[in-house]
Amino acid sequence: SVNPDLASERQTASFSVEKLTALLDGGAEKTRIRRAVVEAIESDPVFSRENQYFQTQNERYEAAVRKAVHLLKKMDEMGWTENGPEYKYIYRALSGDVAFLLHRVFMRSISVLGSEKQVAKWIPLATQHKLIGSYAQTELGHGTYLQGLETTAVFDISTQEFILNTPKISAMKWWPGEMGRSATHTVVFAQLYIHGKCYGIHPFIVQIRSLQDHSLCPGITAGDIGPKMNFEHTDNGYLMLKNVRVPRENMLSKFCEVRPDGTYVRQGSQQINYFTMTTVRISLLSDEVLTPLMKACTIAIRYSAVRRQSKLQPGEQEAKILDYQTQQEKLLPQLAAAYAYHFINDYLQELFDRGYREIQRKNFDMLPELHALSSGFKAVITHHCTAAVEICLRACGGHGYSLLSGLPSLYTKILASCIYEGENTILLLQTARFLIKCFMAASAGQPVPPSVTYLAAGKPGKCPAKSKLDFLSPDIYTEAYQHVAVRLISSTASKLQDLIQSGVKKYDAWNQCTVQLVQAAKAHCHYITVKNFAETVEKLEPKAGIQRIMKHLCDLFALHGIFSNTGAFLHDGYISAAQMDMVTASYLDLLAVIRKDAVPLVDAFDFTDKCLNSALGSYDGQVYPRLYEWAQKSPTNKMSPAYEKYLKPLLHNTLSKL
Amino acid sequence: SVNPDLASERQTASFSVEKLTALLDGGAEKTRIRRAVVEAIESDPVFSRENQYFQTQNERYEAAVRKAVHLLKKMDEMGWTENGPEYKYIYRALSGDVAFLLHRVFMRSISVLGSEKQVAKWIPLATQHKLIGSYAQTELGHGTYLQGLETTAVFDISTQEFILNTPKISAMKWWPGEMGRSATHTVVFAQLYIHGKCYGIHPFIVQIRSLQDHSLCPGITAGDIGPKMNFEHTDNGYLMLKNVRVPRENMLSKFCEVRPDGTYVRQGSQQINYFTMTTVRISLLSDEVLTPLMKACTIAIRYSAVRRQSKLQPGEQEAKILDYQTQQEKLLPQLAAAYAYHFINDYLQELFDRGYREIQRKNFDMLPELHALSSGFKAVITHHCTAAVEICLRACGGHGYSLLSGLPSLYTKILASCIYEGENTILLLQTARFLIKCFMAASAGQPVPPSVTYLAAGKPGKCPAKSKLDFLSPDIYTEAYQHVAVRLISSTASKLQDLIQSGVKKYDAWNQCTVQLVQAAKAHCHYITVKNFAETVEKLEPKAGIQRIMKHLCDLFALHGIFSNTGAFLHDGYISAAQMDMVTASYLDLLAVIRKDAVPLVDAFDFTDKCLNSALGSYDGQVYPRLYEWAQKSPTNKMSPAYEKYLKPLLHNTLSKL
Repeated sequence: SVNPDLASERQTASFSVEKLTALLDGGAEKTRIRRAVVEAIESDPVFSRENQYFQTQNERYEAAVRKAVHLLKKMDEMGWTENGPEYKYIYRALSGDVAFLLHRVFMRSISVLGSEKQVAKWIPLATQHKLIGSYAQTELGHGTYLQGLETTAVFDISTQEFILNTPKISAMKWWPGEMGRSATHTVVFAQLYIHGKCYGIHPFIVQIRSLQDHSLCPGITAGDIGPKMNFEHTDNGYLMLKNVRVPRENMLSKFCEVRPDGTYVRQGSQQINYFTMTTVRISLLSDEVLTPLMKACTIAIRYSAVRRQSKLQPGEQEAKILDYQTQQEKLLPQLAAAYAYHFINDYLQELFDRGYREIQRKNFDMLPELHALSSGFKAVITHHCTAAVEICLRACGGHGYSLLSGLPSLYTKILASCIYEGENTILLLQTARFLIKCFMAASAGQPVPPSVTYLAAGKPGKCPAKSKLDFLSPDIYTEAYQHVAVRLISSTASKLQDLIQSGVKKYDAWNQCTVQLVQAAKAHCHYITVKNFAETVEKLEPKAGIQRIMKHLCDLFALHGIFSNTGAFLHDGYISAAQMDMVTASYLDLLAVIRKDAVPLVDAFDFTDKCLNSALGSYDGQVYPRLYEWAQKSPTNKMSPAYEKYLKPLLHNTLSKL
Repeated sequence: SVNPDLASERQTASFSVEKLTALLDGGAEKTRIRRAVVEAIESDPVFSRENQYFQTQNERYEAAVRKAVHLLKKMDEMGWTENGPEYKYIYRALSGDVAFLLHRVFMRSISVLGSEKQVAKWIPLATQHKLIGSYAQTELGHGTYLQGLETTAVFDISTQEFILNTPKISAMKWWPGEMGRSATHTVVFAQLYIHGKCYGIHPFIVQIRSLQDHSLCPGITAGDIGPKMNFEHTDNGYLMLKNVRVPRENMLSKFCEVRPDGTYVRQGSQQINYFTMTTVRISLLSDEVLTPLMKACTIAIRYSAVRRQSKLQPGEQEAKILDYQTQQEKLLPQLAAAYAYHFINDYLQELFDRGYREIQRKNFDMLPELHALSSGFKAVITHHCTAAVEICLRACGGHGYSLLSGLPSLYTKILASCIYEGENTILLLQTARFLIKCFMAASAGQPVPPSVTYLAAGKPGKCPAKSKLDFLSPDIYTEAYQHVAVRLISSTASKLQDLIQSGVKKYDAWNQCTVQLVQAAKAHCHYITVKNFAETVEKLEPKAGIQRIMKHLCDLFALHGIFSNTGAFLHDGYISAAQMDMVTASYLDLLAVIRKDAVPLVDAFDFTDKCLNSALGSYDGQVYPRLYEWAQKSPTNKMSPAYEKYLKPLLHNTLSKL
């Protein structure tokens, strides 16, 4: 039975939830396939996540391996293949709680970086799981700056082998998933040396554990790096190499080869490889960033429609906390952001598919733009979604702090996305470098890539809005975002030039501008997100109430961004104080409008209860019985030795009855 | 041996670290006492936290009980008493990882709410640990709004007992510490009924577990609420009561009594009791909020002086990440905030001590102001410090994400402070209510409490700064903060009045203003913090470089607040765009100045390595060897059954040598 407080929220939906779900999925047929996958996974007890919040790191790892091995069987059974339409839904249905993800990265790196011969040898073995792979790049002392990696691979011409070493403790490989316990093989990135000369970073296939008994191979020290904030199911590991020899054939040699005589030959183009790295940043957004935010919104908004606390109106029943303006102001902008980033993700996926086709045709023109976009959007979206999940968690008060709410693990996991695949600040500075370059080019009348042509059109001006309703016009707010992006990019470019002209060295001048460069890069991505949301809404069909509610969310996303960052818009007077008051009024009005559809808007994300795994967020809104039921299963409700050991002696000699 | 990159940071300190430590402690003698306590605790292996990051919730609970019991012996041995000067340092030295904290709350509630007879009976029993107490207020469905509590206590005149019940699942007590496993007794807050009439919430002493064998008493259902984001060592529990009878004498009756004939008598003043609740919010700041932030700053700043990544200048060694402007901009404002809040905490403690003396003299005039200050500052400081710890965590990249850094547990613990002892948004609205009232009074020429007299003096004007150096004048920035606070309070008061005059009902108008009321309350607390920091710095002696560096930190705190919230200052033109550019320039300049003393500034917090318990933050800066050493101890480096069960069968039939 559905909690009546939640049921009533659904009765007044202004749009078709099912149609919105289909829109999010990209069509009703995809919704059907997704649900079939979810059903198959969730009805299989091996994939259960029921006791997840009670498990130790060791138990989580064991479960992840069990699920990964079972999944191979399941895929066979269901006829799912890696290229089939079901594949992309499996990971979401498992909530990522499965091993062998790095095995797939291992395979991809061989496919992309290996010669035809290498691919022919290793890929079948990996596909059949005759080995388990990992990917060893990051070192204890080296992350983002790949040129700084210290692991070495010295070519020994006499034996036709590479000798691999991690010469210092800071060179130890650190973090690779699957490395701690599972992997038998890995791709090690090391500085290649031939005849004493360094040729830079290259990838080498190295066996690390015996295929007989899983013991470490000679010269190998490896293990698990221990507890982390999340990812308990993954055996992130360390690896030390001491004079480990691999045959010459183990250097992945699609782009670079070492000939038997020690000649180093560079061949083919690495562009497609760099591009692959770039696309990873975009491809992780859907499962690792948007899904967690959508889950957090679902949990927090359903809970807020059920939780009653204090009175709005004297004499009445206690109010749903979703009826408080402050609660709406916490949650509804995060809901709008989930939609905004869903649509920008669609846009980026499409752009990158197009980029991929161009690059295969040897047209590399789009590369700098794609690199800048992938860096900037990875940083902006992971940052914003992480903050949003945290807001959802806090908005649920004490119950949000219980692991049983599901929110803490969503938060601790999404947080990692701000760090992996490029630390966000560094990525934003790469976007900024592109923007500054394009701004200079545009100012000099040179052509620039499509996403930055607006930099040439920037001109002073004032926002033409005359009433709070004008701020519900996408043209008005999109232009405001554009204006701010141009202003921040151009003013930082000026500061940079001024510093250099005043004699400050270039690298020093750059460092002195980085705080502002980061702001400029964010403004650029924010502008494109708003513009894309507005354009997406305009293209929607007006049927079933979908366009209307999406328009409200787009307005909310845009106005929330202005309201939260008023200084950027007020600075040069583009928006006046009086207009800013209109923005505030329109923004607060919108909260009350969207609040009415808040529950249907999260229902449209279509998470099953098992997928949410939250005592606060289930479809039926039965929060309290579920919290109680789940708590009783906690291992902390078994007898503790603390009583016999410490409490009993302490209480000893007490009056039998006080 | 100290990492040379860290050692070099200490050689150039512009001030005496030891003198700054003494200033923070409140005198060199207090530093001496604190260090003696720390030494005694840390040299005792029972108090070790060495394996803390590897322990399960059950193990953490057991360790906390062990430590609590051992502490009783230790205090005896050392001659430490609850009223002695050492007492306040014990908890910090244990990093809060100890049981029986709620036992003390149980005792305090009896001391404050109990009659002399009740105090005489229960306090000796509790002091001698002949029972273990808890404090049962919050319910599954009810937190902040105490009037909504559903537990009932019905007076049975025939037996002279109260019959206690939790009539619905939402009435179940939920969260009380010590309740899950340890407590034998608790104070239950319940709606008192006599002859069918409800007299509101009253406290009752209830035994919940047998003193013989710790089994649950008749009518009692109790247990542990399960895993949380932190506080693994605490057995937060649930409690259901079914017709549990306690004698009439068990209702705590200092202020209200039920006579044998059922007459209800209210006696004495509850003011001092409300005041006690208020002071809890201030008293938690030091140990639960400021100490974690100081630890996080210590860890992140030491690590940033040791971690080298990428190159600032081509051809040079990789740079310390602390030399990047973006890293400085992340960490140094948090360091400044730690000092700012340390000083405002001193100010608040003093104010509350004074308030306590006044109230004992039956002068209750200060109560509304103290309530408003404690609510607002609890919210602002916990919110800011939580955000700051998160920034420190993220600023350490991947290694910050490892539990071994110590940062995740600092974050997950401090986060709870935003929720407990009053949810922050609700507290800010209480402050706002006081501010609006005072603003109306001040506008009508009536007298107002000292901390808000500035509301009467508010007038339009412009910031007089003419150069970036002018923004290093405390008068300039303090006035800017004051101006913004007045503007936000007065404009929200106007909106509220306008709404009411236009016919909106009062409670509805209030709800429609709450987002802005929260902003106004924050601005008020921010202003007082800046003003207090500036006044504190002015009073410091200029010797040993302390005043100079504190002045820099005060400037940074103030300018960071403006830089991060430019819109509030630009809105009515109090600060112009040109002046805002000066603020930015001054702010960025300060980062480079304070960066030079960053390590000495965290050294002054004087945390031992054992207290920090961080592989990244130790005094010697040996980050990588320590991470490796600690990781090897992780239980995840023991053999997992996953190999024999799943991996071996999978890899079976593989070629013995690839």
